[in-house]
Amino acid sequence: MNPDTVVTDADEHIHYTWDNGLDPVATVADGAVVEFECRDAADNQLATDATGADVAAMESKGHALSGPVEMGNAEPGDTLAVDLLDFEHHGHGVSYFPPGDSGAGLLPDEFPEPFCYNWELDDGVAFFENGIEVPLAPFPGNLGLAPAEPGPHSTTPPRNVGGNLDVKHLTAGSTLFLPVEVSGGLFSIGDCHAAQGDGEVCLTGIEAPMDVTARFRLVERDLIAPEFETGGPFTPSGRDEPAHATVGVSDDLMDACRLATSRMLDHLEAERGLTREAAYVLASVAVDLKVNQVVDAPNWTVSAYVADSLFP
Amino acid sequence: MNPDTVVTDADEHIHYTWDNGLDPVATVADGAVVEFECRDAADNQLATDATGADVAAMESKGHALSGPVEMGNAEPGDTLAVDLLDFEHHGHGVSYFPPGDSGAGLLPDEFPEPFCYNWELDDGVAFFENGIEVPLAPFPGNLGLAPAEPGPHSTTPPRNVGGNLDVKHLTAGSTLFLPVEVSGGLFSIGDCHAAQGDGEVCLTGIEAPMDVTARFRLVERDLIAPEFETGGPFTPSGRDEPAHATVGVSDDLMDACRLATSRMLDHLEAERGLTREAAYVLASVAVDLKVNQVVDAPNWTVSAYVADSLFP
Repeated sequence: MNPDTVVTDADEHIHYTWDNGLDPVATVADGAVVEFECRDAADNQLATDATGADVAAMESKGHALSGPVEMGNAEPGDTLAVDLLDFEHHGHGVSYFPPGDSGAGLLPDEFPEPFCYNWELDDGVAFFENGIEVPLAPFPGNLGLAPAEPGPHSTTPPRNVGGNLDVKHLTAGSTLFLPVEVSGGLFSIGDCHAAQGDGEVCLTGIEAPMDVTARFRLVERDLIAPEFETGGPFTPSGRDEPAHATVGVSDDLMDACRLATSRMLDHLEAERGLTREAAYVLASVAVDLKVNQVVDAPNWTVSAYVADSLFP
Repeated sequence: MNPDTVVTDADEHIHYTWDNGLDPVATVADGAVVEFECRDAADNQLATDATGADVAAMESKGHALSGPVEMGNAEPGDTLAVDLLDFEHHGHGVSYFPPGDSGAGLLPDEFPEPFCYNWELDDGVAFFENGIEVPLAPFPGNLGLAPAEPGPHSTTPPRNVGGNLDVKHLTAGSTLFLPVEVSGGLFSIGDCHAAQGDGEVCLTGIEAPMDVTARFRLVERDLIAPEFETGGPFTPSGRDEPAHATVGVSDDLMDACRLATSRMLDHLEAERGLTREAAYVLASVAVDLKVNQVVDAPNWTVSAYVADSLFP
């Protein structure tokens, strides 16, 4: 589909905070199709031979976001529908975690040293160690509108206007609904992932520069937080298939996530021959955390699922 | 498959606490196939025309569990594999939530009054209001081994020896691995659900008396908490299909579950014409909570997903 507007990833189209005072890089009409060239979350700072040391040395100003694009007639209280139409990666991606003393990721205490894995991507899969292939399901980790509150806001936490939602089901064919808080909405996007597990446990998915095409529509809908429509994929193959799961039981839901994930790493080390660092990366890009129950007080159940089909 | 042993649901085979001092109702060998007649979680106290008032009047001693069955040669440190082979329901089930002042369920403040829905079950689906059909995917909510710690323990919270895990993917064909803490293991089972969503948000799935057939094997595996193998179903149809999702963003993971669920109820009321009580029940039996990310501090993302295919 030919876009009505192209937002390139030139420096003047990139910003590193959410801020409703930013000048729009383009203004579009209801129904417009826009192509965004997106840098990766790390602002394309990591070369395709980057190492853990490069990750530790990296300076982050925030996610590199392309935009903002002003929706001509959007006003506070409106709902913006973002139809995600197409994603084109550039053949490479990177997954990493910083040193544990940063506190980043779900299990920083288990991983004091930084780590980096450089992915080669083809049309359908990403290639990992030990013959493992991760099916691609590209989506934008960070997309949203400018918040009503003035001034710069970190790009890391998601908010009700969207942002760093990291919802892996926002694949091509999906539609994201966002509440508009400022005139024109001011939409920006970046942080594309070629694949991610539910949880994104090591901090990163397969972080990849990508060209994203999206259509914008104002719709009648009463909305105070994001909603979306998706067709998945909900498993690597898109249909039921065998999986192994590890169970986390705890009176704290985040702790249950940690327990399930840590035991999944045990499983990937013992049964699939991965180093613990590689297991952490694979879990971040291909293992799904599901909330089994949140009602059997005082203990909750969260499990981590990995599909057998990833393995040769 | 003809079982080696049948544990009926006669009073002498039912217990209401986990306790390693209970006398086994049967002793079986490695590889044995056992059929368990299971009462429902409410000890079959709710008739097929039960109302919210009946729920409020119900007395609970704990989940009605069938067992315990002693595994002849199981010793502490062993791992027991439970192959779940077959589930036969009796044509009816019930979903309910108690008065909100009990604090039970994910959203007690929204639901002060008790509520009950009586399900008719056929071979494949359960019939709900407004022509909605929920595909059956039967599994035991509560199954496990006696804990090492002596004395009676509540059946409500799950533990590392299993119990009230409420993992909806423990369907026929699945295998649950449990760590043995006492000689003979002492396995019990009950609280079968004809269907449940990930989260079980209103407190109950489709609670149904059921006959369960399972095979027991001692396996070589280093285990400190439950693990399992499953083939799903991961969606109602067993393959990718359209879903609507509501997003919860919060710095507390349980609060993110609450926000996503509460907005899913808004959606089911506004778009699917359900009362809020019916929406809460439908969410509990057919809406899935997924942990989208737990690394974008300080805000986490949890979303609630409902498949379009449930609706006529």
